[in-house]
Formats: sequence, structure tokens, C-alpha cells
Amino acid sequence: MKPKRDGESQCIRVSVRTAAMLVIGNEILSGKIQDANTVALAQSLRRLGVALRRQVCVLDDVETIATEVRALAASHDFVFTSGGVGPTHDDVTIEGVARAFGVAVVEDEALAAMIRAHYGERLLEGHLRMALVPSGSTQETSEDIVWPLTKLANVLVLPGVPEIFKLKLRIAERLLGADRPFVSRAVYTRMDEGTLKPLLDAVVAAHPEVDVGSYPTWTDPSYKTKLTFDGLDPELVGRATDAFIGTLPAGEPQRVE
Amino acid sequence: MKPKRDGESQCIRVSVRTAAMLVIGNEILSGKIQDANTVALAQSLRRLGVALRRQVCVLDDVETIATEVRALAASHDFVFTSGGVGPTHDDVTIEGVARAFGVAVVEDEALAAMIRAHYGERLLEGHLRMALVPSGSTQETSEDIVWPLTKLANVLVLPGVPEIFKLKLRIAERLLGADRPFVSRAVYTRMDEGTLKPLLDAVVAAHPEVDVGSYPTWTDPSYKTKLTFDGLDPELVGRATDAFIGTLPAGEPQRVE
Repeated sequence: MKPKRDGESQCIRVSVRTAAMLVIGNEILSGKIQDANTVALAQSLRRLGVALRRQVCVLDDVETIATEVRALAASHDFVFTSGGVGPTHDDVTIEGVARAFGVAVVEDEALAAMIRAHYGERLLEGHLRMALVPSGSTQETSEDIVWPLTKLANVLVLPGVPEIFKLKLRIAERLLGADRPFVSRAVYTRMDEGTLKPLLDAVVAAHPEVDVGSYPTWTDPSYKTKLTFDGLDPELVGRATDAFIGTLPAGEPQRVE
Repeated sequence: MKPKRDGESQCIRVSVRTAAMLVIGNEILSGKIQDANTVALAQSLRRLGVALRRQVCVLDDVETIATEVRALAASHDFVFTSGGVGPTHDDVTIEGVARAFGVAVVEDEALAAMIRAHYGERLLEGHLRMALVPSGSTQETSEDIVWPLTKLANVLVLPGVPEIFKLKLRIAERLLGADRPFVSRAVYTRMDEGTLKPLLDAVVAAHPEVDVGSYPTWTDPSYKTKLTFDGLDPELVGRATDAFIGTLPAGEPQRVE
């Protein structure tokens, strides 16, 4: 049984905003810590209707960062960087972003004033390095988040510490603004992927606007394969999901989310 | 107090083998799941003395995968791919790797025989797709892992499911063989990064063979900044760590690992 082709599913192609993520840090590539910021950004961008297309992780190296930022900024609507924004020798993201755009690194007066007020007599030169930003960048804040996020052109510079990354992400969300969010549905079956393949091929062919994924599990005894249906139009996503469910044999699916 | 420069720290420069990781999967970039394979690979490579230099995550797209594999394979000693190796429409890694090297996708006879034996009368065409490999690739096994890892030139193709990724990693480890492992030490202090900066600059300048990292915490009350000292030579790493500790004020460090 093939899912029936529905004339109404010829939907309007909408232009989707795209994003890329650049994770900067030797600590990730040496396996000391697991990157937790990509998944946080990805989930946030789904809610905003922005498609995360690419994620790259590089070492703490100015030239590598500059090359990568330049390439990602030219090919995506937004670039998010994570990590390398402290005052120590291994924090070279600001310099890398500046170099990507061929601008100098300068002290931001407002940031420097904030730092001076905070440290008072304990102020050291190292602390003031936190006031360095690429020339021409803007320092973006929100009502409840005092320490700003640095934005240069379409590049948003976020810190690596996951708690602070998530906090700053709220400023980024405000800057980007929300389109309609991506919607996602999931169907769980006890069928293996080899058996599901022809059913999936049919639903993929009939619903080109819906992104269909297939994920086997080796650990959850309640199902064998999870099928996902993603898109910007809830009706089209629902139609593809229902069409697929309609092709399953008796006793399936195990559950739908 | 500056750490003293030690003539013996002019060590022999060894050629370090390099690696890159390509994570393939819409499920990562849409935030459905968090990639757990990069950290597993990174830790494994540290033990083997191989430097993971770059990690990229892309969508399930043949041409994107091919372009990325080609670039990474040309610039690193080894490339590991994760994900996209099942039998369904969204599993396009084998085709991407084949296209990167300009070879065809062919059925591996031994794999096909294994699949036929396993499924018997339940065998479907979809199951046999798991026997497809890039022409010219070798299927690598180990004594205890029956299902092989596909290797084409310097590219090792691993599955995305974390449990199976880790299993296959053992085959990869055998193929690469171990050089001397990277060693790592960590020093925990209650000092902030701005205060630590001049001390770190001194140790970085005096110990060029040691990779020094600085990581503030926002969640652990027992310290403020963790400093890491990494390298291939335990003696040089130990010397840099001790030199740094020698520059700390009374009461520091909180602990050393």
C-alpha cells in the first residue's frame, strides 16, 4: 500500500534562514569535556525556525578561527561561536573573529567601565582584556543580562561555559527574532530498518517538504526503529506522518509523539 | 617569580599523527540528540597518541559528505566518520565516501553472505543494502567483533549509534596502533583568569612543548579556574605543571590531578 499523493501538499517554498556553529576549544578535541552547546543552540534555533546547517569544532588557533569564521559567515545567515572568550592566552576567539573581517581588536569603553567598577582596587590588566572586542562590533544586551554578547556583522560570539552560553543565547534569540518554528513528530515501531525501507522511500517521495529520519535503537526494548517527520508546516508534517502510519502492518506503530 | 627556563626542555620534536572527525546526521543539527561520539573518539585518540585536530558535523547530504571527506582526508592522517550507515534513504555516508574518492558503491560478497545467513527467509532487499561499500575499501574486523568496519584509504566509517560506535572504535584502535599516549595534568585554583594571566603567559612562554589550558567554572564551588597541562612527554608536562605551581601565591593550588 502506497501513501496517496495529495495535490494540496504542493506547498509554498519558504526561504529558511540558515545558521552555522563554530565550537572553539582544545578541551573538546582532546576529549576533556563533551560539547553541550551545539545541542542547546540547535534546539533554540528550531524554536525560532532557523536551520542549523553545519557545526565545526577547531583548536584555539587564531588563523584557523579566522578562516573558519570567514567561510561560515559567507555561506550562512548567522554564525554562532562558542568558547575562547576569556582573558587568558588560550582565548583567541575575539582576535580570530576580528581577523576574519579584517578589523582591529579595540577596547570597548562601556565594557571597560563595567570591569573597572566591578573589580575596583583589585583590577589587574588581565581583567581588562575582557573589554576587548572587534572594531565595529556591537555589544548586545537584554534587560536581565548585564554582560553583553558581541556581534560583528552576522557573527554572534558566545562563551564556552554551558551555563553562560545558555544565558547569552537568550540575547541571541531576541536578536534573531522568531519565524514559525520547526515542528517534529516521531513514530516508534518494532520493525527493523531493512523492512521499513520501502515504506519510508514511498513517504519520502510523496512528501518532499518533510524531512524524514530513521533511527534504530540498541538500548530501548520498547521499540526497534524511531521515525521522525520534521518541517515548517504542521499540516504537511502531520500528513506525511499519518500517511506513513497508514502503511504500517497491524500492531504498529508502538507509539506516536 | 618567573618559572626558570630549563635548558633540558628543548625536547625532540616528534611528528604527531593527526585525525579529523566527521559527524553525519540531521538528528544532531536539529537538536534531537547530542553527539556523544566525538568525545569517545577524542579520548581514544589521546590514548593512542593521535591528535584530533578538527570535527565537523553536516547534514545527511551525499555531496556535502563527499566534499567534506575529500578535504579532511587530504589534510589529516586519519578521518573518522560517524553516522549514516544504515539501509534507509537518510543513510548516505557510504555513497558520500565513495564519491569523495571517485569510486563506485559495490556489494561486498562476504557482508552479503553474512546478511543472508542472518535473515534467512525474512531477508528483504533493504537488508542487503547493509552490504554496500565503496569499491576498493577493506572490511576490518577483530576477533570479538563480527560486523566489520569499512576503511577506504585513510577514512574509517563508523556508525552513529553510540554503543556500536564505541565497539567499532576498538577495531579502529587496533588499525591505528598506539604511539605514546598524550599525558595531561590539572591544577585547580581559587584565582580568577584575569589574575592568573601573567603567570600563565610565563609558563606558556617557557614551555612551548606543553599545551596549557585555562577553564573557569561557574558551578563547582571548590575552585574558580582549572589549568591543564598537556603533551606527549610526561617529564615536560610535569616540569611545566610544577613550574606553574611554583609561581602561585600561598594557599594555592586547591588540588592537583
